[in-house]
Amino acid sequence: MSGEDAPAQQQNAEEQKNQETKKPAEEPKAETKPDSPPATAATEAAAAPAAEEKAPEEETFTYRSLVLTGYGGYDKVKLQVKKGKPALKAGEVMVRVKMCGLNFADLMARQGLYDRLPSPPVTPGMECSGIIEAVGEEVTDRKVGDKVLVLNRSGLWQEVAVVPATHTFIMPEGMSFEEAAALPVNYITAYMMLFDFGHLRPNQSVLVHMAAGGVGIAATQLCRTVSDVTVFGTASASKHEVITEGGVNHAIDYRTKDYVEEVRKISPKGLDIVLDPLGGSDTHKGYNLLKPMGKLISYGAANMLSGQKKNLLAVAKTWYHQFSVHSLSLIQGNRSVCGFHLGYLDSETELIAQAMDTILALYRQGKVKPRIDSTFHLEQVGDAMRKMQERNNIGKIVLTTEPMKEEELKKEEAKKDDKKKEDKKKDDKKKDDGKKEEKKKEEKKEEKKEEKKEEKKEEKKEEKKEEKKEEEKKEEPKKAEN
Amino acid sequence: MSGEDAPAQQQNAEEQKNQETKKPAEEPKAETKPDSPPATAATEAAAAPAAEEKAPEEETFTYRSLVLTGYGGYDKVKLQVKKGKPALKAGEVMVRVKMCGLNFADLMARQGLYDRLPSPPVTPGMECSGIIEAVGEEVTDRKVGDKVLVLNRSGLWQEVAVVPATHTFIMPEGMSFEEAAALPVNYITAYMMLFDFGHLRPNQSVLVHMAAGGVGIAATQLCRTVSDVTVFGTASASKHEVITEGGVNHAIDYRTKDYVEEVRKISPKGLDIVLDPLGGSDTHKGYNLLKPMGKLISYGAANMLSGQKKNLLAVAKTWYHQFSVHSLSLIQGNRSVCGFHLGYLDSETELIAQAMDTILALYRQGKVKPRIDSTFHLEQVGDAMRKMQERNNIGKIVLTTEPMKEEELKKEEAKKDDKKKEDKKKDDKKKDDGKKEEKKKEEKKEEKKEEKKEEKKEEKKEEKKEEKKEEEKKEEPKKAEN
Repeated sequence: MSGEDAPAQQQNAEEQKNQETKKPAEEPKAETKPDSPPATAATEAAAAPAAEEKAPEEETFTYRSLVLTGYGGYDKVKLQVKKGKPALKAGEVMVRVKMCGLNFADLMARQGLYDRLPSPPVTPGMECSGIIEAVGEEVTDRKVGDKVLVLNRSGLWQEVAVVPATHTFIMPEGMSFEEAAALPVNYITAYMMLFDFGHLRPNQSVLVHMAAGGVGIAATQLCRTVSDVTVFGTASASKHEVITEGGVNHAIDYRTKDYVEEVRKISPKGLDIVLDPLGGSDTHKGYNLLKPMGKLISYGAANMLSGQKKNLLAVAKTWYHQFSVHSLSLIQGNRSVCGFHLGYLDSETELIAQAMDTILALYRQGKVKPRIDSTFHLEQVGDAMRKMQERNNIGKIVLTTEPMKEEELKKEEAKKDDKKKEDKKKDDKKKDDGKKEEKKKEEKKEEKKEEKKEEKKEEKKEEKKEEKKEEEKKEEPKKAEN
Repeated sequence: MSGEDAPAQQQNAEEQKNQETKKPAEEPKAETKPDSPPATAATEAAAAPAAEEKAPEEETFTYRSLVLTGYGGYDKVKLQVKKGKPALKAGEVMVRVKMCGLNFADLMARQGLYDRLPSPPVTPGMECSGIIEAVGEEVTDRKVGDKVLVLNRSGLWQEVAVVPATHTFIMPEGMSFEEAAALPVNYITAYMMLFDFGHLRPNQSVLVHMAAGGVGIAATQLCRTVSDVTVFGTASASKHEVITEGGVNHAIDYRTKDYVEEVRKISPKGLDIVLDPLGGSDTHKGYNLLKPMGKLISYGAANMLSGQKKNLLAVAKTWYHQFSVHSLSLIQGNRSVCGFHLGYLDSETELIAQAMDTILALYRQGKVKPRIDSTFHLEQVGDAMRKMQERNNIGKIVLTTEPMKEEELKKEEAKKDDKKKEDKKKDDKKKDDGKKEEKKKEEKKEEKKEEKKEEKKEEKKEEKKEEKKEEEKKEEPKKAEN
């Protein structure tokens, strides 16, 4: 599958305006959609043209940009052309974007499940790599021509991005633009979880879910920087070879085996750190796997994602099984429960800069290296998202701003119609599945009652029931792959 | 107050047996109550007497021991005489105890609120210092005459204690027995909380409640081993000078000021670490004070303690306001919530040994040093517990196994009757207070409803309401002091 579906439409600016902006149609030739408000103190370090010379450039300057036009399926992210050179405020830089990283939060955002992305229409994208094209006033440590990694709340999936200079980091010698776009979110996330919340030390054990994903691979590499750490990694069997080579000691196929049981076989006392991107009942399982002084670090709710549009059932289920813990239970278990999401940490520039410094040093020492799964053109963003959501990637999925060649583009267009039909079929199937799930409602009510009883004390018994739930959960991704 | 109440009764062995043991009275002269079961492979390294020579020593060997005879007030801990030399199993050592440390868990245990102490009759005591008097088989790294610090689940408040050799640590040169008895529980607790769960680093900020208590002083000293850490410490005003000298940067009188407000004045963004020994509504407050990547570490429920006997209202209130958190709330806040209690960690000898090694190294470097508040005789254990519970100590309260001189003892006996009457008065007052609290029930029902609403999202508003609750709480310790 994947890699061949629903290329993002390239629209002309006139279409854009009529479809997605709320500007009155009679507005005179307002074809530009700059991301930033008009600059109050704009400066272009390169040429520093006089103010009266700017007007023509603002009109001729165009760049392609991915825009989330509304919440929904993969086709909600459209390729548009923006006009007008963005203005720079003090402290900002303009980056000519080369590559962009794709993250789970982008998938959540498209479905309207991520509150850190401003409302559509909006350009998504939390990380990219590129070259600085202009610097604003008061920027002293960046200059035109610097190759940088960029981390931002949003707005990076386009050819030109304006960001605070503090959100950029100089690329180390020898790092490719692909690597640079793949690094920030995954490695900072893995680093802060393992070393700040997790306080990872030699001889400890770590469970890494989705070990073939971006964070999974980053976490595994970072675990390997500490001596004698045992890494348990879950992934489907086809990915085991790669993750084992990458440093996972015990690869577990979560689709055919109960990972709790597998971990207990090898480490009966449990684990020191559990990284949990799944949420729902998996968080409970992770908690029950902790040793004394163990840390559960929750950093997502991937279980909420099922299908390309918001699946209310999956969302409700994940919410319903959401983990909650009492402080006295933590005391008696000597345990720690942490939550992490880089998207909510965007104002902590200093913390992030510290983590990034360390990670880039590890890169220079050859201790970490992003693994690129595949690179898609901006026109193929739908395929890229689908590949990630269906968990068919091993490592990072990256978008390149390099335009597709014309013949490639024509092929994609031809496939588009076929794919749309296929998508419709899948959606219909989802609906059927939904109906089946409805039938299980009675069963779930039963479970609810039991769970409440358990929450009070009997954690061990809980594991068994959760296995049941886990089985249900496993069925879903399988369906999605059909 | 304090220091002069209810000396523990010294009972003769016959009394003991009739009062607290369930052995039939006709049993032949079974005056010995060894703590350990009969040894299967007992060895006495010192003299290694032949088996047939042991019988006489078992009869002549006596030692004084504090015994919790049932749950309740200070007088439930009685001084008894045990007979018979305890037998040693392989891996165990016998320690001639010099000093014992007093901990909050001992106070909780006396009221039946600490499930790690075996049921009465039982000898409490989690830490002591002393000299090794005999070593069991397979013990290679301890010898008779070694001065040691001891950490054990219970059973150390007596003149002779038998413990696994792994629970003993060689005292550094120059350390007094008082210091050695004061160190283990408080410093390991503070160390593991700050450095394992807390991952304390330079320039961070820490809130230390009960900063004049044993853990509070240990935590402050350990914070001072990291550069530029800001310590906020709560204590009543009379203790501010001492805690400030000890390293607290901002001493806050929690009895007259709202500590949340005081912290926010100085550190508007909040704190990196909150150590919470209080429980109940204070845990909520601590959570709301956390910065992104902040850690709340809960390690007790001192708010449950009110008065010398179990105060069901205080217990219920603390339970009722017990903190619980959802993983999605942790994710959105980038926060960590941890629970710690050394008593539940007693099987983790390796973890504890690592922490102890580091702490003893810091002691040798002069960077940490237990502060002794006062030393009581075993006979005065009631006074010692009272002083701690009423928070009249600055630093550690220690028990010495050295017997009281006869004239001192007589004085104590004379005071005993007066004090008993006083206690009764206090209990009556407590009951009255209880009735007053009943009246507040309606108010609390209101609060409950509000709290549920808040838990969902509005954390900020919660702070205001908690201030109210806090005010209620503050009234209690004041009453206890009257």
